[in-house]
Amino acid sequence: MKPTAHLLGVDWGTSNLRVMRIADGGRVLDSRSDPRGAGGLTPDQFHDVLRDVAGDWLNEGLPVLVSGMAGARGRWREMAYLPCPAGVADLAGAIASPDDAPGVRLVPGVAAFEDDRLQDVMRGEETQVLGLDLQDDAVVVGPGTHSKWIRTAQGRITGFRTFMTGELFAAIRKGTILGGGMGEPGVDDDAFAAGVARALKDPAVTAALFSVRVEGLAGRLSPASAADYLSGLLIGAEVAAQLDTRERPILLIGAEPLCARYASALAQADFHDVRISDGAAATALGLWRIHEAVSR
Amino acid sequence: MKPTAHLLGVDWGTSNLRVMRIADGGRVLDSRSDPRGAGGLTPDQFHDVLRDVAGDWLNEGLPVLVSGMAGARGRWREMAYLPCPAGVADLAGAIASPDDAPGVRLVPGVAAFEDDRLQDVMRGEETQVLGLDLQDDAVVVGPGTHSKWIRTAQGRITGFRTFMTGELFAAIRKGTILGGGMGEPGVDDDAFAAGVARALKDPAVTAALFSVRVEGLAGRLSPASAADYLSGLLIGAEVAAQLDTRERPILLIGAEPLCARYASALAQADFHDVRISDGAAATALGLWRIHEAVSR
Repeated sequence: MKPTAHLLGVDWGTSNLRVMRIADGGRVLDSRSDPRGAGGLTPDQFHDVLRDVAGDWLNEGLPVLVSGMAGARGRWREMAYLPCPAGVADLAGAIASPDDAPGVRLVPGVAAFEDDRLQDVMRGEETQVLGLDLQDDAVVVGPGTHSKWIRTAQGRITGFRTFMTGELFAAIRKGTILGGGMGEPGVDDDAFAAGVARALKDPAVTAALFSVRVEGLAGRLSPASAADYLSGLLIGAEVAAQLDTRERPILLIGAEPLCARYASALAQADFHDVRISDGAAATALGLWRIHEAVSR
Repeated sequence: MKPTAHLLGVDWGTSNLRVMRIADGGRVLDSRSDPRGAGGLTPDQFHDVLRDVAGDWLNEGLPVLVSGMAGARGRWREMAYLPCPAGVADLAGAIASPDDAPGVRLVPGVAAFEDDRLQDVMRGEETQVLGLDLQDDAVVVGPGTHSKWIRTAQGRITGFRTFMTGELFAAIRKGTILGGGMGEPGVDDDAFAAGVARALKDPAVTAALFSVRVEGLAGRLSPASAADYLSGLLIGAEVAAQLDTRERPILLIGAEPLCARYASALAQADFHDVRISDGAAATALGLWRIHEAVSR
Protein backbone atom coordinates (compact mmCIF):
# COMPACT_ATOMS: atom_id res chain seq x y z
CA MET A 1 0.00 0.00 0.00
CA LYS A 2 1.38 3.41 -0.95
CA PRO A 3 1.90 5.62 2.11
CA THR A 4 -0.17 8.79 2.31
CA ALA A 5 1.34 12.28 2.48
CA HIS A 6 0.42 14.22 5.60
CA LEU A 7 2.41 17.41 5.15
CA LEU A 8 3.77 19.53 2.34
CA GLY A 9 7.13 20.70 3.59
CA VAL A 10 9.06 23.55 1.94
CA ASP A 11 12.70 24.43 2.48
CA TRP A 12 13.06 27.86 0.88
CA GLY A 13 16.72 28.83 0.75
CA THR A 14 18.27 32.00 -0.63
CA SER A 15 19.14 30.45 -3.98
CA ASN A 16 17.07 27.28 -4.09
CA LEU A 17 13.65 25.92 -3.23
CA ARG A 18 12.76 22.37 -2.21
CA VAL A 19 9.22 21.07 -1.83
CA MET A 20 8.59 17.69 -0.18
CA ARG A 21 5.55 15.48 0.28
CA ILE A 22 6.08 14.15 3.78
CA ALA A 23 4.51 11.03 5.28
CA ASP A 24 3.38 10.49 8.85
CA GLY A 25 6.59 10.27 10.87
CA GLY A 26 8.55 12.68 8.70
CA ARG A 27 9.72 10.52 5.82
CA VAL A 28 10.01 12.18 2.38
CA LEU A 29 7.77 10.55 -0.23
CA ASP A 30 8.54 12.83 -3.19
CA SER A 31 10.48 16.04 -3.58
CA ARG A 32 11.08 18.72 -6.19
CA SER A 33 13.73 21.40 -6.42
CA ASP A 34 13.63 24.75 -8.18
CA PRO A 35 16.22 27.51 -8.62
CA ARG A 36 13.79 30.28 -7.65
CA GLY A 37 15.33 30.92 -4.23
CA ALA A 38 13.91 33.47 -1.80
CA GLY A 39 16.80 35.84 -2.45
CA GLY A 40 15.43 36.77 -5.86
CA LEU A 41 11.70 37.02 -5.08
CA THR A 42 9.42 39.88 -4.03
CA PRO A 43 6.67 39.16 -1.45
CA ASP A 44 3.94 38.78 -4.08
CA GLN A 45 5.88 36.16 -6.09
CA PHE A 46 6.23 33.41 -3.48
CA HIS A 47 2.74 31.97 -3.71
CA ASP A 48 2.88 31.86 -7.51
CA VAL A 49 6.25 30.14 -7.49
CA LEU A 50 5.03 27.56 -5.00
CA ARG A 51 1.90 26.91 -7.10
CA ASP A 52 4.07 26.67 -10.18
CA VAL A 53 6.46 24.14 -8.65
CA ALA A 54 3.91 22.08 -6.71
CA GLY A 55 0.38 23.12 -7.70
CA ASP A 56 -0.74 19.50 -7.99
CA TRP A 57 0.53 18.76 -4.49
CA LEU A 58 -1.13 21.89 -3.08
CA ASN A 59 -4.39 20.63 -4.59
CA GLU A 60 -4.16 17.56 -2.38
CA GLY A 61 -5.19 19.86 0.44
CA LEU A 62 -2.22 19.02 2.68
CA PRO A 63 -1.10 21.42 5.40
CA VAL A 64 1.93 23.47 4.23
CA LEU A 65 4.91 24.38 6.40
CA VAL A 66 7.80 26.50 5.12
CA SER A 67 11.23 26.99 6.68
CA GLY A 68 14.13 29.17 5.58
CA MET A 69 14.50 32.52 3.88
CA ALA A 70 10.84 32.93 2.86
CA GLY A 71 10.51 34.46 6.34
CA ALA A 72 13.35 36.96 5.91
CA ARG A 73 12.83 40.71 5.81
CA GLY A 74 11.42 41.80 2.44
CA ARG A 75 10.45 38.25 1.42
CA TRP A 76 7.12 36.41 1.74
CA ARG A 77 6.40 37.60 5.27
CA GLU A 78 8.97 38.74 7.81
CA MET A 79 9.09 36.27 10.67
CA ALA A 80 10.72 37.09 14.01
CA TYR A 81 13.91 35.47 15.24
CA LEU A 82 13.20 33.48 18.40
CA PRO A 83 15.88 33.78 21.07
CA CYS A 84 17.91 30.76 22.18
CA PRO A 85 17.26 28.35 23.76
CA ALA A 86 14.77 27.32 21.08
CA GLY A 87 13.20 23.92 20.52
CA VAL A 88 10.38 22.38 18.50
CA ALA A 89 7.64 23.70 20.80
CA ASP A 90 9.07 27.25 20.70
CA LEU A 91 9.12 27.29 16.90
CA ALA A 92 5.67 25.71 16.67
CA GLY A 93 4.33 28.41 18.98
CA ALA A 94 5.52 31.19 16.71
CA ILE A 95 4.53 30.12 13.22
CA ALA A 96 2.44 32.52 11.15
CA SER A 97 0.92 32.80 7.68
CA PRO A 98 1.57 35.28 4.87
CA ASP A 99 -1.42 37.54 4.14
CA ASP A 100 -1.86 36.19 0.63
CA ALA A 101 -1.78 32.51 1.66
CA PRO A 102 -3.59 31.77 4.91
CA GLY A 103 -3.13 28.04 4.39
CA VAL A 104 0.66 28.35 4.37
CA ARG A 105 2.62 28.60 7.64
CA LEU A 106 6.16 29.92 8.00
CA VAL A 107 8.68 28.78 10.61
CA PRO A 108 10.44 31.66 12.45
CA GLY A 109 14.22 32.09 12.57
CA VAL A 110 16.40 31.77 15.65
CA ALA A 111 18.72 34.38 17.13
CA ALA A 112 21.66 34.19 19.49
CA PHE A 113 22.01 36.99 22.03
CA GLU A 114 24.87 37.98 24.28
CA ASP A 115 24.15 40.38 27.14
CA ASP A 116 20.82 41.15 25.47
CA ARG A 117 22.56 42.15 22.24
CA LEU A 118 21.70 40.33 19.02
CA GLN A 119 24.82 38.36 18.07
CA ASP A 120 23.84 35.98 15.30
CA VAL A 121 20.88 34.81 13.24
CA MET A 122 19.72 31.75 11.31
CA ARG A 123 16.77 30.87 9.08
CA GLY A 124 16.27 27.27 8.02
CA GLU A 125 19.08 25.63 9.96
CA GLU A 126 16.94 25.61 13.13
CA THR A 127 14.40 23.34 11.42
CA GLN A 128 17.14 21.06 10.17
CA VAL A 129 18.83 20.80 13.57
CA LEU A 130 15.54 19.97 15.29
CA GLY A 131 15.01 17.15 12.80
CA LEU A 132 18.21 15.41 13.88
CA ASP A 133 18.42 12.80 16.59
CA LEU A 134 20.71 14.72 18.87
CA GLN A 135 23.03 13.23 21.43
CA ASP A 136 23.40 15.15 24.67
CA ASP A 137 25.16 18.47 24.15
CA ALA A 138 25.72 17.79 20.46
CA VAL A 139 27.12 20.48 18.19
CA VAL A 140 25.65 20.58 14.69
CA VAL A 141 27.93 21.95 11.98
CA GLY A 142 26.38 23.05 8.70
CA PRO A 143 29.19 23.83 6.23
CA GLY A 144 28.55 26.09 3.29
CA THR A 145 28.26 29.71 2.17
CA HIS A 146 27.59 30.75 5.75
CA SER A 147 28.79 27.86 7.90
CA LYS A 148 27.05 27.47 11.20
CA TRP A 149 28.18 25.84 14.45
CA ILE A 150 25.05 25.21 16.46
CA ARG A 151 25.16 24.12 20.09
CA THR A 152 22.32 22.09 21.51
CA ALA A 153 21.27 20.82 24.92
CA GLN A 154 18.33 18.58 25.70
CA GLY A 155 17.10 18.80 22.13
CA ARG A 156 17.03 22.61 21.96
CA ILE A 157 19.32 25.10 20.21
CA THR A 158 21.27 26.94 22.91
CA GLY A 159 23.64 29.08 20.85
CA PHE A 160 25.41 29.29 17.52
CA ARG A 161 27.96 31.06 15.44
CA THR A 162 28.14 31.86 11.73
CA PHE A 163 31.36 31.80 9.71
CA MET A 164 31.40 33.30 6.21
CA THR A 165 33.66 30.51 4.99
CA GLY A 166 32.07 29.53 1.68
CA GLU A 167 31.28 33.07 0.61
CA LEU A 168 34.79 34.28 1.48
CA PHE A 169 36.31 31.38 -0.41
CA ALA A 170 34.41 32.43 -3.53
CA ALA A 171 35.12 36.16 -3.07
CA ILE A 172 38.85 35.56 -2.53
CA ARG A 173 39.11 33.34 -5.59
CA LYS A 174 37.27 35.83 -7.73
CA GLY A 175 38.47 39.14 -6.33
CA THR A 176 42.11 38.81 -5.21
CA ILE A 177 45.51 37.96 -6.68
CA LEU A 178 45.29 34.61 -4.88
CA GLY A 179 42.65 33.49 -7.38
CA GLY A 180 44.89 34.04 -10.42
CA GLY A 181 45.52 30.69 -12.09
CA MET A 182 43.91 28.85 -9.19
CA GLY A 183 42.35 25.47 -10.03
CA GLU A 184 39.19 23.90 -8.64
CA PRO A 185 39.11 22.55 -5.08
CA GLY A 186 38.74 18.86 -4.34
CA VAL A 187 41.85 17.49 -6.05
CA ASP A 188 44.63 17.61 -3.44
CA ASP A 189 43.94 16.35 0.08
CA ASP A 190 47.51 17.07 1.20
CA ALA A 191 47.24 20.73 0.20
CA PHE A 192 43.93 20.91 2.05
CA ALA A 193 45.55 19.41 5.16
CA ALA A 194 48.46 21.86 4.89
CA GLY A 195 45.98 24.75 4.83
CA VAL A 196 44.17 23.37 7.87
CA ALA A 197 47.47 22.92 9.73
CA ARG A 198 48.47 26.49 8.96
CA ALA A 199 45.15 27.85 10.21
CA LEU A 200 45.30 25.78 13.40
CA LYS A 201 48.77 27.16 14.09
CA ASP A 202 48.07 30.78 13.14
CA PRO A 203 44.91 32.60 14.29
CA ALA A 204 45.55 35.65 12.08
CA VAL A 205 43.51 34.66 9.04
CA THR A 206 44.11 37.82 7.00
CA ALA A 207 47.86 37.21 7.31
CA ALA A 208 47.63 33.44 6.81
CA LEU A 209 45.85 34.07 3.50
CA PHE A 210 49.00 35.65 2.10
CA SER A 211 50.68 32.27 2.59
CA VAL A 212 48.75 31.03 -0.46
CA ARG A 213 51.00 33.34 -2.46
CA VAL A 214 54.17 32.64 -0.50
CA GLU A 215 53.74 28.86 -0.70
CA GLY A 216 53.38 29.27 -4.46
CA LEU A 217 56.49 31.46 -4.74
CA ALA A 218 58.44 28.95 -2.66
CA GLY A 219 57.45 26.15 -5.02
CA ARG A 220 55.61 24.29 -2.28
CA LEU A 221 52.13 24.78 -3.75
CA SER A 222 51.11 24.34 -7.39
CA PRO A 223 48.32 26.45 -8.93
CA ALA A 224 46.30 23.24 -9.34
CA SER A 225 46.40 22.63 -5.57
CA ALA A 226 46.05 26.23 -4.39
CA ALA A 227 42.23 26.12 -4.11
CA ASP A 228 42.47 23.15 -1.76
CA TYR A 229 45.06 24.92 0.38
CA LEU A 230 42.86 28.04 0.53
CA SER A 231 39.85 25.92 1.41
CA GLY A 232 41.88 24.26 4.17
CA LEU A 233 42.92 27.66 5.52
CA LEU A 234 39.35 28.94 5.76
CA ILE A 235 37.82 25.72 7.10
CA GLY A 236 40.76 25.40 9.47
CA ALA A 237 40.14 28.94 10.77
CA GLU A 238 36.57 27.90 11.54
CA VAL A 239 37.70 24.77 13.37
CA ALA A 240 40.39 26.71 15.25
CA ALA A 241 37.76 29.10 16.59
CA GLN A 242 35.63 26.20 17.84
CA LEU A 243 38.22 24.08 19.62
CA ASP A 244 36.23 24.44 22.85
CA THR A 245 33.62 22.09 21.33
CA ARG A 246 36.22 19.35 20.82
CA GLU A 247 34.90 17.13 23.59
CA ARG A 248 31.31 17.27 22.35
CA PRO A 249 29.64 15.05 19.72
CA ILE A 250 29.78 16.79 16.33
CA LEU A 251 27.13 16.21 13.69
CA LEU A 252 27.92 17.46 10.20
CA ILE A 253 25.02 18.18 7.84
CA GLY A 254 25.32 19.32 4.25
CA ALA A 255 26.75 18.33 0.90
CA GLU A 256 28.73 15.10 1.15
CA PRO A 257 32.13 16.14 -0.30
CA LEU A 258 32.20 19.27 1.85
CA CYS A 259 31.20 17.33 4.96
CA ALA A 260 34.01 14.87 4.26
CA ARG A 261 36.45 17.79 4.09
CA TYR A 262 35.17 19.16 7.39
CA ALA A 263 35.43 15.71 8.97
CA SER A 264 39.05 15.52 7.89
CA ALA A 265 39.82 19.02 9.28
CA LEU A 266 38.09 18.11 12.55
CA ALA A 267 40.13 14.91 12.82
CA GLN A 268 43.29 16.98 12.27
CA ALA A 269 42.27 19.15 15.23
CA ASP A 270 41.68 16.07 17.44
CA PHE A 271 37.90 16.10 17.45
CA HIS A 272 36.97 12.52 18.35
CA ASP A 273 33.24 12.11 17.91
CA VAL A 274 32.27 13.30 14.42
CA ARG A 275 29.40 11.95 12.34
CA ILE A 276 27.86 13.02 9.02
CA SER A 277 24.09 13.21 8.75
CA ASP A 278 21.64 13.56 5.84
CA GLY A 279 20.58 17.22 5.72
CA ALA A 280 17.52 16.81 3.48
CA ALA A 281 16.04 14.09 5.69
CA ALA A 282 16.70 16.24 8.76
CA THR A 283 14.83 19.20 7.25
CA ALA A 284 11.80 17.01 6.46
CA LEU A 285 11.80 15.51 9.94
CA GLY A 286 12.21 18.95 11.54
CA LEU A 287 9.25 20.28 9.57
CA TRP A 288 7.24 17.22 10.58
CA ARG A 289 8.06 17.63 14.26
CA ILE A 290 7.11 21.33 14.22
CA HIS A 291 3.89 20.48 12.33
CA GLU A 292 3.02 17.84 14.90
CA ALA A 293 3.69 20.24 17.78
CA VAL A 294 1.40 22.83 16.15
CA SER A 295 -1.38 20.28 15.62
CA ARG A 296 -1.20 19.01 19.14
CA MET B 1 70.93 78.16 -7.66
CA LYS B 2 68.88 75.21 -8.78
CA PRO B 3 70.08 71.98 -7.14
CA THR B 4 71.41 69.32 -9.46
CA ALA B 5 69.87 65.84 -9.75
CA HIS B 6 72.22 63.01 -8.87
CA LEU B 7 69.95 59.99 -9.21
CA LEU B 8 66.90 58.92 -11.16
CA GLY B 9 64.86 56.89 -8.69
CA VAL B 10 61.98 54.68 -9.77
CA ASP B 11 59.32 53.15 -7.53
CA TRP B 12 57.60 50.59 -9.75
CA GLY B 13 54.52 49.24 -8.00
CA THR B 14 52.06 46.66 -9.26
CA SER B 15 49.56 49.23 -10.47
CA ASN B 16 51.53 52.45 -10.57
CA LEU B 17 54.92 53.84 -11.53
CA ARG B 18 56.71 56.82 -9.99
CA VAL B 19 59.91 58.34 -11.37
CA MET B 20 61.85 60.89 -9.30
CA ARG B 21 64.80 63.17 -9.95
CA ILE B 22 66.68 62.96 -6.68
CA ALA B 23 69.23 65.46 -5.37
CA ASP B 24 72.37 64.76 -3.37
CA GLY B 25 71.11 63.73 0.08
CA GLY B 26 67.91 62.08 -1.17
CA ARG B 27 65.55 65.01 -1.67
CA VAL B 28 63.03 64.75 -4.53
CA LEU B 29 63.42 67.55 -7.08
CA ASP B 30 60.71 66.49 -9.55
CA SER B 31 58.53 63.45 -9.89
CA ARG B 32 56.12 61.91 -12.38
CA SER B 33 53.53 59.17 -11.96
CA ASP B 34 52.10 56.81 -14.53
CA PRO B 35 49.42 54.10 -14.31
CA ARG B 36 51.53 51.53 -16.18
CA GLY B 37 52.32 49.41 -13.11
CA ALA B 38 54.59 46.36 -13.27
CA GLY B 39 51.61 44.03 -12.89
CA GLY B 40 50.50 44.66 -16.46
CA LEU B 41 53.86 44.68 -18.25
CA THR B 42 55.91 42.00 -20.00
CA PRO B 43 59.72 42.07 -19.60
CA ASP B 44 60.31 43.78 -22.94
CA GLN B 45 57.93 46.66 -22.17
CA PHE B 46 59.59 48.14 -19.07
CA HIS B 47 62.38 50.02 -20.78
CA ASP B 48 59.98 51.55 -23.31
CA VAL B 49 57.58 52.66 -20.60
CA LEU B 50 60.40 54.23 -18.61
CA ARG B 51 61.67 56.06 -21.72
CA ASP B 52 58.13 57.15 -22.46
CA VAL B 53 57.53 58.55 -18.98
CA ALA B 54 60.98 60.03 -18.36
CA GLY B 55 62.99 59.95 -21.59
CA ASP B 56 64.18 63.53 -21.07
CA TRP B 57 65.42 62.71 -17.60
CA LEU B 58 67.15 59.53 -18.81
CA ASN B 59 68.95 61.71 -21.34
CA GLU B 60 70.54 63.65 -18.47
CA GLY B 61 72.74 60.59 -18.01
CA LEU B 62 71.88 60.09 -14.34
CA PRO B 63 72.31 56.71 -12.68
CA VAL B 64 68.98 54.88 -12.47
CA LEU B 65 67.82 52.79 -9.49
CA VAL B 66 64.50 50.95 -9.46
CA SER B 67 62.69 49.43 -6.49
CA GLY B 68 59.46 47.45 -6.34
CA MET B 69 57.70 45.00 -8.59
CA ALA B 70 59.89 45.52 -11.67
CA GLY B 71 62.05 42.83 -10.02
CA ALA B 72 59.22 40.32 -9.58
CA ARG B 73 59.07 36.99 -11.41
CA GLY B 74 58.00 37.48 -15.02
CA ARG B 75 58.62 41.25 -14.97
CA TRP B 76 61.65 43.28 -16.06
CA ARG B 77 64.21 40.96 -14.48
CA GLU B 78 63.58 38.59 -11.60
CA MET B 79 65.54 39.71 -8.57
CA ALA B 80 66.18 37.49 -5.57
CA TYR B 81 64.63 38.03 -2.16
CA LEU B 82 67.37 38.74 0.38
CA PRO B 83 66.86 37.06 3.75
CA CYS B 84 66.32 39.11 6.93
CA PRO B 85 68.13 40.80 8.56
CA ALA B 86 68.58 43.11 5.57
CA GLY B 87 69.93 46.66 5.54
CA VAL B 88 71.15 49.22 3.02
CA ALA B 89 74.50 47.51 2.46
CA ASP B 90 72.85 44.12 1.89
CA LEU B 91 70.50 45.54 -0.74
CA ALA B 92 73.27 47.55 -2.38
CA GLY B 93 75.36 44.39 -2.63
CA ALA B 94 72.67 42.55 -4.57
CA ILE B 95 71.49 45.03 -7.19
CA ALA B 96 71.57 43.91 -10.81
CA SER B 97 70.60 45.18 -14.26
CA PRO B 98 68.07 43.91 -16.78
CA ASP B 99 69.67 42.51 -19.97
CA ASP B 100 68.05 45.16 -22.15
CA ALA B 101 69.10 48.11 -19.98
CA PRO B 102 72.61 47.80 -18.53
CA GLY B 103 72.41 51.34 -17.15
CA VAL B 104 69.39 50.54 -15.01
CA ARG B 105 69.80 48.82 -11.64
CA LEU B 106 67.08 46.96 -9.76
CA VAL B 107 66.85 46.64 -5.97
CA PRO B 108 66.21 43.06 -4.75
CA GLY B 109 63.25 42.11 -2.53
CA VAL B 110 63.44 40.90 1.04
CA ALA B 111 62.16 37.63 2.46
CA ALA B 112 61.28 36.47 5.97
CA PHE B 113 62.17 32.90 6.88
CA GLU B 114 61.13 30.73 9.77
CA ASP B 115 63.09 27.54 10.40
CA ASP B 116 64.62 27.94 6.92
CA ARG B 117 61.16 28.04 5.34
CA LEU B 118 60.15 31.07 3.29
CA GLN B 119 57.37 32.79 5.27
CA ASP B 120 56.80 36.15 3.65
CA VAL B 121 58.05 38.43 0.90
CA MET B 122 58.20 42.11 0.02
CA ARG B 123 59.27 44.19 -2.96
CA GLY B 124 59.51 47.95 -2.62
CA GLU B 125 58.70 48.34 1.07
CA GLU B 126 62.30 47.43 1.99
CA THR B 127 63.58 50.51 0.15
CA GLN B 128 60.98 52.70 1.80
CA VAL B 129 61.75 51.39 5.29
CA LEU B 130 65.47 51.94 4.82
CA GLY B 131 64.77 55.54 3.85
CA LEU B 132 63.16 56.27 7.21
CA ASP B 133 64.98 57.58 10.24
CA LEU B 134 64.30 54.63 12.46
CA GLN B 135 64.22 54.68 16.23
CA ASP B 136 65.63 51.64 17.98
CA ASP B 137 63.48 48.55 17.40
CA ALA B 138 60.90 50.53 15.43
CA VAL B 139 58.07 48.75 13.64
CA VAL B 140 57.10 50.21 10.28
CA VAL B 141 53.49 49.68 9.23
CA GLY B 142 52.58 50.15 5.58
CA PRO B 143 48.78 50.02 5.24
CA GLY B 144 47.21 49.18 1.91
CA THR B 145 46.27 46.36 -0.43
CA HIS B 146 48.82 44.12 1.26
CA SER B 147 49.54 45.74 4.60
CA LYS B 148 52.96 45.07 6.03
CA TRP B 149 54.24 45.15 9.60
CA ILE B 150 58.01 45.38 9.36
CA ARG B 151 60.25 44.97 12.38
CA THR B 152 63.62 46.67 12.45
CA ALA B 153 66.67 46.67 14.67
CA GLN B 154 69.77 48.81 14.31
CA GLY B 155 68.54 50.16 10.98
CA ARG B 156 67.97 46.76 9.37
CA ILE B 157 64.79 44.84 8.58
CA THR B 158 64.64 41.85 10.91
CA GLY B 159 61.25 40.34 10.09
CA PHE B 160 57.82 41.20 8.75
CA ARG B 161 54.30 40.03 8.15
CA THR B 162 51.83 40.72 5.35
CA PHE B 163 48.08 41.11 5.90
CA MET B 164 45.74 41.08 2.89
CA THR B 165 43.62 43.79 4.48
CA GLY B 166 43.00 46.17 1.59
CA GLU B 167 42.50 43.47 -1.00
CA LEU B 168 40.11 41.55 1.25
CA PHE B 169 38.15 44.72 1.96
CA ALA B 170 37.62 45.22 -1.77
CA ALA B 171 36.85 41.55 -2.47
CA ILE B 172 34.33 41.37 0.38
CA ARG B 173 32.58 44.55 -0.74
CA LYS B 174 32.39 43.34 -4.30
CA GLY B 175 31.84 39.63 -3.88
CA THR B 176 29.70 38.99 -0.78
CA ILE B 177 26.25 39.88 0.58
CA LEU B 178 27.97 42.26 3.00
CA GLY B 179 28.69 44.60 0.09
CA GLY B 180 25.04 44.94 -0.92
CA GLY B 181 23.98 48.55 -0.39
CA MET B 182 27.24 49.36 1.37
CA GLY B 183 28.44 52.97 1.12
CA GLU B 184 31.98 54.29 0.83
CA PRO B 185 34.37 54.17 3.79
CA GLY B 186 35.59 57.32 5.52
CA VAL B 187 32.30 58.79 6.72
CA ASP B 188 31.67 57.30 10.18
CA ASP B 189 34.49 57.19 12.71
CA ASP B 190 32.26 55.60 15.36
CA ALA B 191 31.38 52.68 13.08
CA PHE B 192 35.08 52.26 12.32
CA ALA B 193 35.88 52.23 16.05
CA ALA B 194 33.10 49.68 16.65
CA GLY B 195 34.62 47.41 14.00
CA VAL B 196 38.06 47.74 15.58
CA ALA B 197 36.63 46.98 19.03
CA ARG B 198 34.90 43.89 17.72
CA ALA B 199 38.09 42.62 16.07
CA LEU B 200 40.17 43.26 19.19
CA LYS B 201 37.67 41.24 21.22
CA ASP B 202 37.16 38.40 18.74
CA PRO B 203 40.08 36.76 16.95
CA ALA B 204 37.83 34.73 14.61
CA VAL B 205 37.74 37.09 11.63
CA THR B 206 35.61 34.92 9.36
CA ALA B 207 32.93 34.84 12.07
CA ALA B 208 33.33 38.50 13.03
CA LEU B 209 32.66 39.45 9.40
CA PHE B 210 29.12 38.13 9.71
CA SER B 211 28.55 40.78 12.37
CA VAL B 212 28.41 43.35 9.55
CA ARG B 213 25.11 41.70 8.62
CA VAL B 214 23.89 41.14 12.17
CA GLU B 215 24.62 44.73 13.23
CA GLY B 216 22.59 45.87 10.22
CA LEU B 217 19.68 43.55 11.06
CA ALA B 218 19.76 44.75 14.66
CA GLY B 219 19.48 48.36 13.47
CA ARG B 220 22.83 49.26 15.01
CA LEU B 221 24.61 49.86 11.69
CA SER B 222 23.27 51.80 8.71
CA PRO B 223 24.24 50.86 5.14
CA ALA B 224 26.02 54.22 4.87
CA SER B 225 28.31 53.31 7.81
CA ALA B 226 28.81 49.62 7.02
CA ALA B 227 31.99 50.13 4.98
CA ASP B 228 33.62 51.90 7.91
CA TYR B 229 32.64 49.10 10.28
CA LEU B 230 34.03 46.50 7.85
CA SER B 231 37.23 48.51 7.47
CA GLY B 232 37.51 48.67 11.27
CA LEU B 233 37.03 44.91 11.52
CA LEU B 234 39.82 44.15 9.05
CA ILE B 235 42.28 46.77 10.31
CA GLY B 236 41.42 45.74 13.87
CA ALA B 237 42.22 42.11 13.02
CA GLU B 238 45.63 43.25 11.82
CA VAL B 239 46.28 45.24 14.99
CA ALA B 240 45.00 42.37 17.17
CA ALA B 241 47.56 40.03 15.61
CA GLN B 242 50.40 42.49 16.32
CA LEU B 243 49.71 43.39 19.93
CA ASP B 244 53.16 42.09 20.84
CA THR B 245 54.64 45.16 19.13
CA ARG B 246 52.65 47.51 21.39
CA GLU B 247 55.66 48.64 23.40
CA ARG B 248 57.71 49.51 20.32
CA PRO B 249 57.74 52.76 18.32
CA ILE B 250 55.35 52.45 15.38
CA LEU B 251 55.93 54.38 12.16
CA LEU B 252 53.02 54.47 9.70
CA ILE B 253 53.79 55.11 6.04
CA GLY B 254 51.24 55.41 3.26
CA ALA B 255 48.22 57.41 2.16
CA GLU B 256 47.25 59.99 4.77
CA PRO B 257 43.55 59.15 5.41
CA LEU B 258 44.38 55.45 5.74
CA CYS B 259 47.33 56.16 8.06
CA ALA B 260 45.02 58.27 10.23
CA ARG B 261 42.60 55.36 10.44
CA TYR B 262 45.41 53.00 11.47
CA ALA B 263 46.63 55.51 14.05
CA SER B 264 43.17 55.60 15.55
CA ALA B 265 42.91 51.77 15.62
CA LEU B 266 46.37 51.58 17.23
CA ALA B 267 45.35 54.11 19.88
CA GLN B 268 42.26 52.00 20.59
CA ALA B 269 44.55 49.01 21.19
CA ASP B 270 46.76 51.04 23.57
CA PHE B 271 49.75 51.54 21.31
CA HIS B 272 51.51 54.60 22.74
CA ASP B 273 54.23 55.65 20.36
CA VAL B 274 52.73 56.04 16.87
CA ARG B 275 53.90 58.48 14.21
CA ILE B 276 52.96 58.98 10.56
CA SER B 277 55.72 59.44 8.01
CA ASP B 278 55.83 60.56 4.37
CA GLY B 279 56.09 57.41 2.26
CA ALA B 280 57.19 59.06 -1.00
CA ALA B 281 60.05 60.91 0.68
CA ALA B 282 61.10 57.68 2.41
CA THR B 283 61.26 55.82 -0.91
CA ALA B 284 63.45 58.54 -2.44
CA LEU B 285 65.76 58.59 0.56
CA GLY B 286 65.94 54.77 0.60
CA LEU B 287 66.89 54.72 -3.08
CA TRP B 288 69.50 57.42 -2.42
CA ARG B 289 71.03 55.51 0.48
CA ILE B 290 71.24 52.29 -1.54
CA HIS B 291 72.74 54.24 -4.47
CA GLU B 292 75.32 55.78 -2.19
CA ALA B 293 76.24 52.40 -0.72
CA VAL B 294 76.69 50.98 -4.24
CA SER B 295 78.89 53.87 -5.32
CA ARG B 296 81.04 53.62 -2.25
